[in-house]
Amino acid sequence: MVIPVETFFLDPQAQGTLQAQVQQMISAGILSGRFRRGEKLPSTRKLAQQLGISRITVTLAYTELVANDYLTSRGRSGYFVSDNAPEPMPERSEPGGGVPVDWSRAIGQHYTSNFALERPLDWSRYRYSFLYGQTDPTLFDHAHWRLCALRALGQKDFQAMTADLYDQDDPQLIEFILRHSLPRRGIHARPSEVLLTLGAQNALWLTAQVLLNRQRKAAIENPCYPALRDILTQSRCQLAAIDVDEHGLPPEAIPDGTDVIFTTPSHQCPTSATMPVDRRRRLLARARDMGALIVEDDYEFEMSFLAPASPALKSLDADGRVIYVGSFSKSLFPGLRLGYLVGSEPFIREARALRASVLRHPPGHIQRTAAYFLSLGHYDAQIRRMSKALAERRAVMEEAIRQYGLDIAGTRSFGGSSLWMRAPEGTDMREVAARLRQQGVLFETGDRFFNGPDVPQNYYRLAYSSIPAERIPQGIRLIAEALRMKDGD
Amino acid sequence: MVIPVETFFLDPQAQGTLQAQVQQMISAGILSGRFRRGEKLPSTRKLAQQLGISRITVTLAYTELVANDYLTSRGRSGYFVSDNAPEPMPERSEPGGGVPVDWSRAIGQHYTSNFALERPLDWSRYRYSFLYGQTDPTLFDHAHWRLCALRALGQKDFQAMTADLYDQDDPQLIEFILRHSLPRRGIHARPSEVLLTLGAQNALWLTAQVLLNRQRKAAIENPCYPALRDILTQSRCQLAAIDVDEHGLPPEAIPDGTDVIFTTPSHQCPTSATMPVDRRRRLLARARDMGALIVEDDYEFEMSFLAPASPALKSLDADGRVIYVGSFSKSLFPGLRLGYLVGSEPFIREARALRASVLRHPPGHIQRTAAYFLSLGHYDAQIRRMSKALAERRAVMEEAIRQYGLDIAGTRSFGGSSLWMRAPEGTDMREVAARLRQQGVLFETGDRFFNGPDVPQNYYRLAYSSIPAERIPQGIRLIAEALRMKDGD
Repeated sequence: MVIPVETFFLDPQAQGTLQAQVQQMISAGILSGRFRRGEKLPSTRKLAQQLGISRITVTLAYTELVANDYLTSRGRSGYFVSDNAPEPMPERSEPGGGVPVDWSRAIGQHYTSNFALERPLDWSRYRYSFLYGQTDPTLFDHAHWRLCALRALGQKDFQAMTADLYDQDDPQLIEFILRHSLPRRGIHARPSEVLLTLGAQNALWLTAQVLLNRQRKAAIENPCYPALRDILTQSRCQLAAIDVDEHGLPPEAIPDGTDVIFTTPSHQCPTSATMPVDRRRRLLARARDMGALIVEDDYEFEMSFLAPASPALKSLDADGRVIYVGSFSKSLFPGLRLGYLVGSEPFIREARALRASVLRHPPGHIQRTAAYFLSLGHYDAQIRRMSKALAERRAVMEEAIRQYGLDIAGTRSFGGSSLWMRAPEGTDMREVAARLRQQGVLFETGDRFFNGPDVPQNYYRLAYSSIPAERIPQGIRLIAEALRMKDGD
Repeated sequence: MVIPVETFFLDPQAQGTLQAQVQQMISAGILSGRFRRGEKLPSTRKLAQQLGISRITVTLAYTELVANDYLTSRGRSGYFVSDNAPEPMPERSEPGGGVPVDWSRAIGQHYTSNFALERPLDWSRYRYSFLYGQTDPTLFDHAHWRLCALRALGQKDFQAMTADLYDQDDPQLIEFILRHSLPRRGIHARPSEVLLTLGAQNALWLTAQVLLNRQRKAAIENPCYPALRDILTQSRCQLAAIDVDEHGLPPEAIPDGTDVIFTTPSHQCPTSATMPVDRRRRLLARARDMGALIVEDDYEFEMSFLAPASPALKSLDADGRVIYVGSFSKSLFPGLRLGYLVGSEPFIREARALRASVLRHPPGHIQRTAAYFLSLGHYDAQIRRMSKALAERRAVMEEAIRQYGLDIAGTRSFGGSSLWMRAPEGTDMREVAARLRQQGVLFETGDRFFNGPDVPQNYYRLAYSSIPAERIPQGIRLIAEALRMKDGD
């Protein structure tokens, strides 16, 4: 790599001769690690021109740096950072010389407290990764995705890829979601009732910002998706966490005066309970009586390989009371960052305006690629392949769990890609998880899913979305052994 | 297209015989426009299986629909929506039968009032588009972008594309921004001081959320980038708009007690003024005296073809007081939705936590593609080509403006891709723009850039980022004629 000449500036307030300043700027670049061994410096002519100084000054500075072994000269090829140049110095800890900002005062609103992620980014290096929500390269139809992406990179789609869409979405993807995805959930909607989002996370966040404020009351399931609780805590609304049972959220337990009810009826997160149709009707009636809205997070509905997916709660909604959250993170991949909201027009209008202000729109190329992948039928084939593989893994999971005597806490009529597990009372799963990590076993502890200061410590979630079937039994055996050791302590 | 069998559901509360229900669900699909002429229906066997009813019931329903000319039978090929099927009915206006939600009450926070976009999405159909910020297909290096995107779609980058990065960014892109982009602005930063965003819009939004609240005071330039004013209005902070002069924001005019100063020193938006180094130092000193932070929006710095770009304000910042906003929207394309923030660690930490909650991270494939495009040198070549073309167009603009007697209001020492224009006092440019649009001429009126209830109506912005040079003179001539007609009224 050639070090670009545009990165060199003279400081008008610098001390010392011009030659010394040039030497300093180069040695500082090397010592800070910005210029690396073997990299080529700009020619003396170019650097002199950039700095507006004479070429002989630059040549003298370079010669001095060669003498000090910061640089080497390779004759007519030019000057390079020497292989014997000093090692970069450790990072500076503070910007030097200024009046440091008092950050405890300068930050107007804090967000860090809400986020404590314990999932390592290098999960794929672990032999037994029961982590939820990452992509299995052996299941994803990478070849067809690549072809669709390539097509969306073509001349014909230049506008779709490059344009600033302001607050709009790719009409092709919207059309396909309306005509293909939503009807499978029993939902019929118009384009003005759908908004694309950066994944379900973004959909839930936008929804909370539009519907809630400090005076409003929200009800969530307990246990529930932890990121949703973080979003609602940030919105500063009043929050009621309702214990779920084997049929999901019990409508009667929702307190009077609730404004917004967040629920996962198809497949409760994390227990996998599916809400029966009768309870869905009661939930809608309860919401109607209170004048409440319902936010239905329909994540992973495609993976209902144990029973046919029932229509979404939204399909029963004659009032326009349900806001539906869909996502491509599980069926395609989470790095895509693509999901959508379906709701009544007044709601979508506000969510669209907020999205425009926060980020405008999901990148055009991502939208168009997804539109092709869906419309060419690859999506359906992908879902079938994934469901089949997950069903197989699920059978291996259940057999290994039976064999090694672990305890499934959640219901198991739906399918999905994870099981909700319970260890004996008194077990601290965080401690067990930390020990198992040393043995290459990764999973999520259950405490994050519960609400309140006093949460059970003996739950955990085992996903089989990215672990090969043949590794499952050994992974389950290691978990069972770790739990037995715990018992023996 | 085959209509997927999964889109058919029986309503457990429906009236009538099963055959009538099947007929109804198909005719409703046709009348609503979901099933289109020529589309194939599921086989009678599959539909019967999906609905859990007898095949003969489905066959009888299909036969009846053929008799009514909703469907046609093509023998062994199956059933299709007839070419004579009824036209879809006009859209239903309200969901039927329910208790409609009172949306005026249900919305907890309103956002729509902030967004009034007047830029048409079909701008590329206009012959004389002087709109700012869209991509010119003749200037963008589409071929190399496609190659980089293809490479980022490869097996080796599967993880980078698909993974949920939680709150992290692609380390390759961060590394390249640190080692290549920022040094060109005189900025040296560590990875923990940089955060990727969904464009500059998202960077400014995140910054406002972290630094401001109802008690804080922000200062903006007047005129300024309208989307920034929308973001700050939403944050409900106290806002002071400071009139800029020919050197940009005057530090002495910033009121005491300001917490955050938003500025565009390289290239004031929209006047194009470049802030001299001396004033930059005074701005930093003023901020330090007040304990204020500065947000530097360094948009379009690469397009400084009239004079070498001076180092960023951030490069003079020894306190860690300046937050720097960079974007690839102008140099690559806005549909990419990629920008970045550079700031002190305590700030970046909060912005990162907020971004994780709002949207997690920009899509992985987008990040990796940009990393390749930058690191392979295509970006630099692209910038050179764009600067050359913009310089040429600028010359044509200035000549046409001189010839037809229009008045440039902004300074013109920098370059960029637009000119800030002034019509004679008393001209209502919104009215002129509406008339010119009929003649295929598009541009932004200046009123949106000004703060306050009483804004000047006689300013406008003419961009030359996506109009071919040969169309410029005629476009300028049409504007001049429209202004003269106005005078003649």
